[in-house]
Amino acid sequence: MASVTARLAETDTGSLIAELTEAFGDQVSTSAAVLERHGNDESYHKGEPPDAVVFARSTDDVSKAVKICAKFNAPIIAFGTGTALEGHITAPFGGVCIDVSEMNEIIKVNAEDLDVTVQAGVTRKQLNEYLRDTGLFFPIDPGADASLGGMAATRASGTNAVRYGTMRENVLNLTAVLADGRVIKTARRAKKSSAGYDLTRLFVGSEGTLGIITELTVKVYGVPEATSAAVCAFPSLEDAVNTTILTIQSGVPVARVELVSKEMMGACINYSKLEGFDVSDHLFFEFHGSEAGVKEQAETVQAIAADFGGENFKFATKQEDRNALWTARHNCHYATKSLRPGCEVWSTDVCVPISHLAEIIADAKTTMDEQGIVGTIVGHVGDGNFHIGYVVDPNNPEELAKAEEHNKQLVYKALAVDGTCTGEHGIGSGKRKFLEAEHGEAVSVMRMIKNALDPEGIMNPGKVLPA
Amino acid sequence: MASVTARLAETDTGSLIAELTEAFGDQVSTSAAVLERHGNDESYHKGEPPDAVVFARSTDDVSKAVKICAKFNAPIIAFGTGTALEGHITAPFGGVCIDVSEMNEIIKVNAEDLDVTVQAGVTRKQLNEYLRDTGLFFPIDPGADASLGGMAATRASGTNAVRYGTMRENVLNLTAVLADGRVIKTARRAKKSSAGYDLTRLFVGSEGTLGIITELTVKVYGVPEATSAAVCAFPSLEDAVNTTILTIQSGVPVARVELVSKEMMGACINYSKLEGFDVSDHLFFEFHGSEAGVKEQAETVQAIAADFGGENFKFATKQEDRNALWTARHNCHYATKSLRPGCEVWSTDVCVPISHLAEIIADAKTTMDEQGIVGTIVGHVGDGNFHIGYVVDPNNPEELAKAEEHNKQLVYKALAVDGTCTGEHGIGSGKRKFLEAEHGEAVSVMRMIKNALDPEGIMNPGKVLPA
Repeated sequence: MASVTARLAETDTGSLIAELTEAFGDQVSTSAAVLERHGNDESYHKGEPPDAVVFARSTDDVSKAVKICAKFNAPIIAFGTGTALEGHITAPFGGVCIDVSEMNEIIKVNAEDLDVTVQAGVTRKQLNEYLRDTGLFFPIDPGADASLGGMAATRASGTNAVRYGTMRENVLNLTAVLADGRVIKTARRAKKSSAGYDLTRLFVGSEGTLGIITELTVKVYGVPEATSAAVCAFPSLEDAVNTTILTIQSGVPVARVELVSKEMMGACINYSKLEGFDVSDHLFFEFHGSEAGVKEQAETVQAIAADFGGENFKFATKQEDRNALWTARHNCHYATKSLRPGCEVWSTDVCVPISHLAEIIADAKTTMDEQGIVGTIVGHVGDGNFHIGYVVDPNNPEELAKAEEHNKQLVYKALAVDGTCTGEHGIGSGKRKFLEAEHGEAVSVMRMIKNALDPEGIMNPGKVLPA
Repeated sequence: MASVTARLAETDTGSLIAELTEAFGDQVSTSAAVLERHGNDESYHKGEPPDAVVFARSTDDVSKAVKICAKFNAPIIAFGTGTALEGHITAPFGGVCIDVSEMNEIIKVNAEDLDVTVQAGVTRKQLNEYLRDTGLFFPIDPGADASLGGMAATRASGTNAVRYGTMRENVLNLTAVLADGRVIKTARRAKKSSAGYDLTRLFVGSEGTLGIITELTVKVYGVPEATSAAVCAFPSLEDAVNTTILTIQSGVPVARVELVSKEMMGACINYSKLEGFDVSDHLFFEFHGSEAGVKEQAETVQAIAADFGGENFKFATKQEDRNALWTARHNCHYATKSLRPGCEVWSTDVCVPISHLAEIIADAKTTMDEQGIVGTIVGHVGDGNFHIGYVVDPNNPEELAKAEEHNKQLVYKALAVDGTCTGEHGIGSGKRKFLEAEHGEAVSVMRMIKNALDPEGIMNPGKVLPA
């Protein structure tokens, strides 16, 4: 495969930056602080800065910048909010970061059709803030206030996916700039279509390696008539997981069901000053529906939980109580980090068929204890997806190696039960080594597509496809 | 683009068939009746027979047959049940039809994970029959008893899609044989994954032009605790459509909402011997949920319908009454055909954002009346998708031209409101002419992918991509 494998020569970099500056003026930055920020995501991965950052304001800007980069065969890395977790935005071969965060216009709310068209830099919180008075909301919630373009690029999901699906199900169409600067729109706003190849889904999850997403139309939903949240403590992790499995199998349309391990709960109580909670394994629930429907769902789940020793079901019906709860859940990453000041969180992301969830979580916990690995467990367990947050000292190679080996074993265990190495964080640079184990010969087809769309390998080199 | 543009020379065809016969024995047929049947689908499109049919029994068989065809650069056409509606299976350049209908093994039911793995020739009714005692069902229902491989290949949907989604949302992974005989599996059984490009969705809807689907894992659902169906007559088509729009916008999780126009209702009453119904515009509903949930949904919809003059809401709670109702709905194609014996049905398939549904249906009806076109209207209106069934004499060029022109205008009106030329039937050979109008520059990306995966253009030539 043709692929960028080295940084540009210094003179070429100079010419490239000169040309970009001529085209974009002060939308181009080469300041060390800006480069540094754009080469690093929120993960333990060692970042590498790009040579320049272009702050794009339109699809045309992106196209123009890509065309200039293509002339120099320079790597191009798309950047939304920098909240990725697998080194997606690092620039191992230098090149140009195209930052779309200023492309934050909400282009059109089609309330009657339950869809919204936005520029790629719009974040999920910004969108929901904007929708507040319309009775609509955008449900996909990966925790971080990520950009919708970035969320589409990594096929993100999060706490609400068990009911509303992931970005895969919620992007109706997108506009993308290809490696030669060409602009395509992948589909229209019809709820379904059988017209040709599903380019929307091809770009969702392609992590900037096939093109840069500049606009997208996403589904939105009516704010449910009633919402209630509940928290329940369990005697063990396994009981909590089994409650989830039975809830899903019973067809309860639960909006959120989140596992928070004992260790995680302890960290949350400290970090988020949660009051009135025990340090034990918990499930956090949210129910959406009519008043009667929400009540019925909660009663069904309470009955299931009771069978697994989950007795003290605490409801949070007031908006502010629910917010406190979900803020605590969203802060798990930072709460985990606070367990060992100065350390980084390395988050795993396997996702398995739900029938294998209890066994794989139990095994992970046992082996972590055996190996003296500090970490927490949280999970979007309704989808079979969970995260171990290893708390590692980035300067301690032995600790890093131990975490790496534990994650590797976890991935192979997930693959052995027909699961995936990543439920929602993406491959980035961190999981390329698992792609062939997961997909086998299908990786060769991914490569054929990559080569067809980006023959010089300039779109986010070093990501997704193994070297 | 490299593409097959002519039939093989006779001597090559002879050698190809000899080699296939050597490899497959009596799994190969060249009988005129078999060829004829395999070159024609259920549409008005003029069929063309292939040169031979191979009845495959396994993925290996398909791979072996494809390799032999590839050696001769012979066209390869996948065949499930032949129920396509856009000339998908016709063989304009001859070649080999690979019939997967004998690949009808249900490989694995993972009841706990709510998924099932099948060979591509399993039909939806066969699967539901098999699942009958498990408390599970497969919801996608395009009317015809199509094969799941064929349904995936055309991104089929149908009456239940408004609640359960289309094949796009319900295929977890698939096994496909590529143009060079290589076998890939696109994903595993995890409910979500961010591991690499979404090849599953790329093959769903590719209509046999990128490869042949030989196995797939689909989602299944718990049979709802309660189901009720209802029928409601409206003063006008517009009232029925507006009832649908408000139902969807209100977030009622209706399982089916089908429009049946006055003309269609008349044909159904005659054809399916329906009793106790008026010849007027109707909506057919189905509600799934708990006892209380179903009751609540029905009450909400009744109130909405009443606002649009839909007064006499008739419920069918008994399974046999529901079956009679849905059988009548499923027989619409044949009922339409019975309006003019000896004629064919030409089915349109546009799908629009729901806010534009009432206007486009009203316009279609008016223009049909003005132009003296005989036809019926039915629709999966919850998704913004509807079908006009033009009843045309295939030997009357003037009638055909009139229908063709009406459909063309309808497609352009759908595109003008951000809709699609096909909600669920696919492009086949019949709608290739609309692909560029719908997708513009994106068609060039589809071509790049086609060229990368099938450089000689042997996979179902003459379909999907415009010449």
